[in-house]
Amino acid sequence: MVSTGERIAIDAMGGDHAPDEIVAGALRAQEELGVKVLLVGEPEKIKAALPSNTNLGQVEIVSATDTIEMDEEPLSAVRRKRSASINVVMDLVKKGKADAAISAGHSGAAMAAALLRLGRLPGIDRPAIGAVFPTMIASKPVLILDVGANVDCRPKFLEQFAVMGSVYSQYVLGTAEPKVGLLNIGEEDCKGNDLAIRTHQMLTSNSQISFLGNAEGRDVLSGRFDVIVCDGFVGNVLLKFAEAVGEIILQILREELPSGLHGQIGTALLKPNLKRIKQRMDHAEHGGALLLGVNGICVISHGSSEAPSIFNAIRMAKEAVDNQVLERIHPQVSSLASE
Amino acid sequence: MVSTGERIAIDAMGGDHAPDEIVAGALRAQEELGVKVLLVGEPEKIKAALPSNTNLGQVEIVSATDTIEMDEEPLSAVRRKRSASINVVMDLVKKGKADAAISAGHSGAAMAAALLRLGRLPGIDRPAIGAVFPTMIASKPVLILDVGANVDCRPKFLEQFAVMGSVYSQYVLGTAEPKVGLLNIGEEDCKGNDLAIRTHQMLTSNSQISFLGNAEGRDVLSGRFDVIVCDGFVGNVLLKFAEAVGEIILQILREELPSGLHGQIGTALLKPNLKRIKQRMDHAEHGGALLLGVNGICVISHGSSEAPSIFNAIRMAKEAVDNQVLERIHPQVSSLASE
Repeated sequence: MVSTGERIAIDAMGGDHAPDEIVAGALRAQEELGVKVLLVGEPEKIKAALPSNTNLGQVEIVSATDTIEMDEEPLSAVRRKRSASINVVMDLVKKGKADAAISAGHSGAAMAAALLRLGRLPGIDRPAIGAVFPTMIASKPVLILDVGANVDCRPKFLEQFAVMGSVYSQYVLGTAEPKVGLLNIGEEDCKGNDLAIRTHQMLTSNSQISFLGNAEGRDVLSGRFDVIVCDGFVGNVLLKFAEAVGEIILQILREELPSGLHGQIGTALLKPNLKRIKQRMDHAEHGGALLLGVNGICVISHGSSEAPSIFNAIRMAKEAVDNQVLERIHPQVSSLASE
Repeated sequence: MVSTGERIAIDAMGGDHAPDEIVAGALRAQEELGVKVLLVGEPEKIKAALPSNTNLGQVEIVSATDTIEMDEEPLSAVRRKRSASINVVMDLVKKGKADAAISAGHSGAAMAAALLRLGRLPGIDRPAIGAVFPTMIASKPVLILDVGANVDCRPKFLEQFAVMGSVYSQYVLGTAEPKVGLLNIGEEDCKGNDLAIRTHQMLTSNSQISFLGNAEGRDVLSGRFDVIVCDGFVGNVLLKFAEAVGEIILQILREELPSGLHGQIGTALLKPNLKRIKQRMDHAEHGGALLLGVNGICVISHGSSEAPSIFNAIRMAKEAVDNQVLERIHPQVSSLASE
């Protein structure tokens, strides 16, 4: 494919299946999406992960001699290990040598590195992690933020999440007028905990967003909302629960469907249909979560990511770059701060 | 069936399908479970809901001339309408004329009526709603509390939930040594929001429970934990999300499975197995949630409950009575208060 010019820096050392699956996903993305991938990490290990038929002239490796382990305290490790791959990735973005950063490594370290190296956008108190969930309406995903960056939030943080989420939904997901919901435990305005009640008032009077009101747990996947805001504690519990539920349902199907003779024949006949169901529920299709509010495009992938997830994460980063997410968020959040 | 003696008072006027489905579920429970059901509400409406072949000598109706509507503010409505069916139900328990209370009506009103009429158990600051979720291990449900009674919690509330939940899991669900988890966003002790971090310390030093540590969203349905505590905001979001996910998955199965000729034949052969899968995921199987911490057995059913849910709610109440949940919680929480 002809290069479309986006330069994506990826931490080749981060993730349970690094560097092999990271490299495989990156090479596929470079070939099929036309992006230019910068593989960041230990050159020898990255080279060993390349298929033998690779044209080395097509592969750009950026050396980083250190890595941050999963059990390290992220902030101090990011500060101490200046040549860690995640730091080098962020530096490439900061210096304008890459348009976006991707990591499937320690997510806390990726956030810390993004904050320290790229800084926050003006008007943003706290960056948020936004995850795209499929809904009951096949073509209508919902962006949920924050799913883990900020465990204790103030109403104005959630307001900033709502504004950033609306911009992303509009320009990247293509929603004409994104409907924003506040994750809550009842439909009425007065419902919720202290944070939710105060945030509701704030979102109601914000003219930059189209606030539809409270979204209950049952509304999350209904397709009624395009953006749902919540604190990072609730959002993270929900994200991890949702990911696990998909796997559990598939296991129940595997256990119960083939039971008995009719079951065995029926299941054999249904094999292609079951595969399609698995795809509809598979979170690998979404590739990663966005870190919104830092001064750069960053995609945080699942630690368990294999090549297809990495490919999708790169596509996500490419779309954010192509649709100028940063440039569009910037004026919106700046005006928020000055109000 | 021979009567087993438990007297269950049920709000025949509460719920989307009241009184017909409430009465149908109650009559079935009386016949199959051996309980004695007291149908509380407007006698004429209840009588009209009885099947024509009903032996009226077998049906006990307790007159209540008022009801609380879904849009009423629960506390003031419960205070104002003294002859509302939910108040009469709770009074029957308080006066010792019934062993347990069930309502599928306004859940806020049921909680308010329970609190005002029955009061709290000594040592309990806030009663909690506990919901039983199925897990990946078929015979090993998990009790999650609180799923909606208390949106802003303090650590000691969650400690009380853990003690009550352990007793319920042990004596009603038959868990030898219930493993307690704290819903949180990471496995490490130091993870979480302010509430989670402080609760973790408290649960670690409580000798009445077997505290296993943090439970992430992905652990909720794993079967590793028997009891999971959280504040009522997160718990309610999770409960409603889980209920909706089950329905969404069933819809995907209905859409995708019968596609194509093989799919149609396969699906036909799998009908009994699919029915079993639906049962494993169907929240109607669980009947309702328990209000733990008030001085009486109360089951709060879904507003959408039909006869099977009501039947299961009555079975749940019967099991709580038979296993002397109140008598067993009482000494545990009393000692908690005096520590």
